[in-house]
Amino acid sequence: MALQVPSAVRICEVGPRDGFQMEKDFIPTAAKVAIIDRLSEIGLPQIQVTSFVHPKAIPQLADADEVMSRIRRKPGVRYTALVPNERGAERAIRAEVDVMELFVSVSESHCLANIRMSTDEAMEKAREVARIGEQAGVQVEIGFPTALGCPFDGFQPYERIERLVGRAVEEFGLKGVNIADTVGMANPSLVADVMSRLTNRFPDVAFSLHLHNTRGMGLANMLAGLSVGVTRFDTSVAGLGGCPFAPGASGNVASEDAVHMLEVMEISTGVSIDSLLDVARAVEQQVGHSESALLRAGTSADLPRRNRSVDASRLQASNTPKKEE
Amino acid sequence: MALQVPSAVRICEVGPRDGFQMEKDFIPTAAKVAIIDRLSEIGLPQIQVTSFVHPKAIPQLADADEVMSRIRRKPGVRYTALVPNERGAERAIRAEVDVMELFVSVSESHCLANIRMSTDEAMEKAREVARIGEQAGVQVEIGFPTALGCPFDGFQPYERIERLVGRAVEEFGLKGVNIADTVGMANPSLVADVMSRLTNRFPDVAFSLHLHNTRGMGLANMLAGLSVGVTRFDTSVAGLGGCPFAPGASGNVASEDAVHMLEVMEISTGVSIDSLLDVARAVEQQVGHSESALLRAGTSADLPRRNRSVDASRLQASNTPKKEE
Repeated sequence: MALQVPSAVRICEVGPRDGFQMEKDFIPTAAKVAIIDRLSEIGLPQIQVTSFVHPKAIPQLADADEVMSRIRRKPGVRYTALVPNERGAERAIRAEVDVMELFVSVSESHCLANIRMSTDEAMEKAREVARIGEQAGVQVEIGFPTALGCPFDGFQPYERIERLVGRAVEEFGLKGVNIADTVGMANPSLVADVMSRLTNRFPDVAFSLHLHNTRGMGLANMLAGLSVGVTRFDTSVAGLGGCPFAPGASGNVASEDAVHMLEVMEISTGVSIDSLLDVARAVEQQVGHSESALLRAGTSADLPRRNRSVDASRLQASNTPKKEE
Repeated sequence: MALQVPSAVRICEVGPRDGFQMEKDFIPTAAKVAIIDRLSEIGLPQIQVTSFVHPKAIPQLADADEVMSRIRRKPGVRYTALVPNERGAERAIRAEVDVMELFVSVSESHCLANIRMSTDEAMEKAREVARIGEQAGVQVEIGFPTALGCPFDGFQPYERIERLVGRAVEEFGLKGVNIADTVGMANPSLVADVMSRLTNRFPDVAFSLHLHNTRGMGLANMLAGLSVGVTRFDTSVAGLGGCPFAPGASGNVASEDAVHMLEVMEISTGVSIDSLLDVARAVEQQVGHSESALLRAGTSADLPRRNRSVDASRLQASNTPKKEE
């Protein structure tokens, strides 16, 4: 019996926003632009370039406007940015983003902690921002952080998620919705349950999943999403990003780990894993760290390739004793 | 739609053998015994205690006989050991193991590298060893390293795996078979395909999966196994073990990562995750390292619990900008 999974998947690279945002040392604008340009070239269909927040809120992304103006846009690639409010929307429109991404935390506590608004207030704000985007003819999508787990309130009732998605879809008229496991609390059963219910309830919406690998379940959660037909996933090159509530814990699912799994499962992404690994190495060099199984281990195909020139009889294996008694 | 997964799973702890075997510094016998005794106490149904290889082949496990004699056996727990040959079988019988675990590499190159025999020669040897076990009234099972990928020869044809399993089951009369992803090359599609074909072909055999997390797919591969009905998994406390062919790469799926995923998916293991984490911390302290998402991040339940006393409005979240513009 084969696993029931889609034949193609759309990877949305969020490293330049979600990953860079967690970096303490400012990444020079030219380095950001160079990385985004390299990501553009290797077949990724969508890149979350930056966030139009106030520069003082996230100094790392204070160069959002400049980054957007300096990147080399590859035809066919969607360049998106997070937009928290009206001023951000104006900047995003001036910067000619392809997609404005709004966000509203499903959890009340997280919403308050993050933007000092209740979830309902944040929805009202999002509606205004969506209207601005619509009037400017810019595509608008919305993301729901903490939908799959909140560091304060724990898991969220499905009904609450559905109600918020319903408003975004039916009242705001949005067609793209991101469901986020912001701090890596989700598990495969939860992912399959929430996503199958949402996709059944809103069959015309393009849902995407934003997953973290905090508890080692990143790719298992992706597999659960695939098994209920989700075809869009946020991932972050070199596994950048993280979780300030769990120091030392790993962050977003690494783009190269995701693309590698999809490729060996024969699910098409349009991305070359070897090229992606090259970019991941450059990103690792830029920021000085990574959270990526593939950067440590190489691809499954690498191993026999590397060992081809080796005398097998002189090597020893891992899960078996080395020699007979 | 809920994922189709079993309601209960049997975790086979392999850290004391597969994990310890990779450690350069000798772990004192008393420390090994103490760890195994703690693992016995927390609900694990099966522990792979050691390997009866020649002491010179794996000096770390040279104390196999002594470890077996000194552990405190908890009723109901199966204490197993790897047995490579006739002499090992005699030692294992004297040590009163509950299960002798044989192994034959599916890949020819790996088998030669590991024990300087062809796969067919190793099967003949295994048949002899199985006979010794049978005559002594000791349960015998068999494992197939590299079934899901070989570091020299790459992926193995399914027919080759089936042929070897068939001989073990039909000629040797064995009823427990372990299918191993020795160097972490498997992917969910491969796991589901191989395991569903094997379980259909040999419905009376108890199959278990031995998975590594080398390329981040450990738990995704476990989920794939679960989805086709596999209910037995080898895991290693603190994620010990590794892969000499991929330096720096992570090893076996960590027991605590596996038990945590299963627990949050409401799949029963009989193991308390909090107790297991305590043992994992002790193991980490003993060997000075670990490969475990849970040891870094804590459980999903921990996070809201820890944050309960925190003023949410003073914290900032991970995948969203911190403040409005």
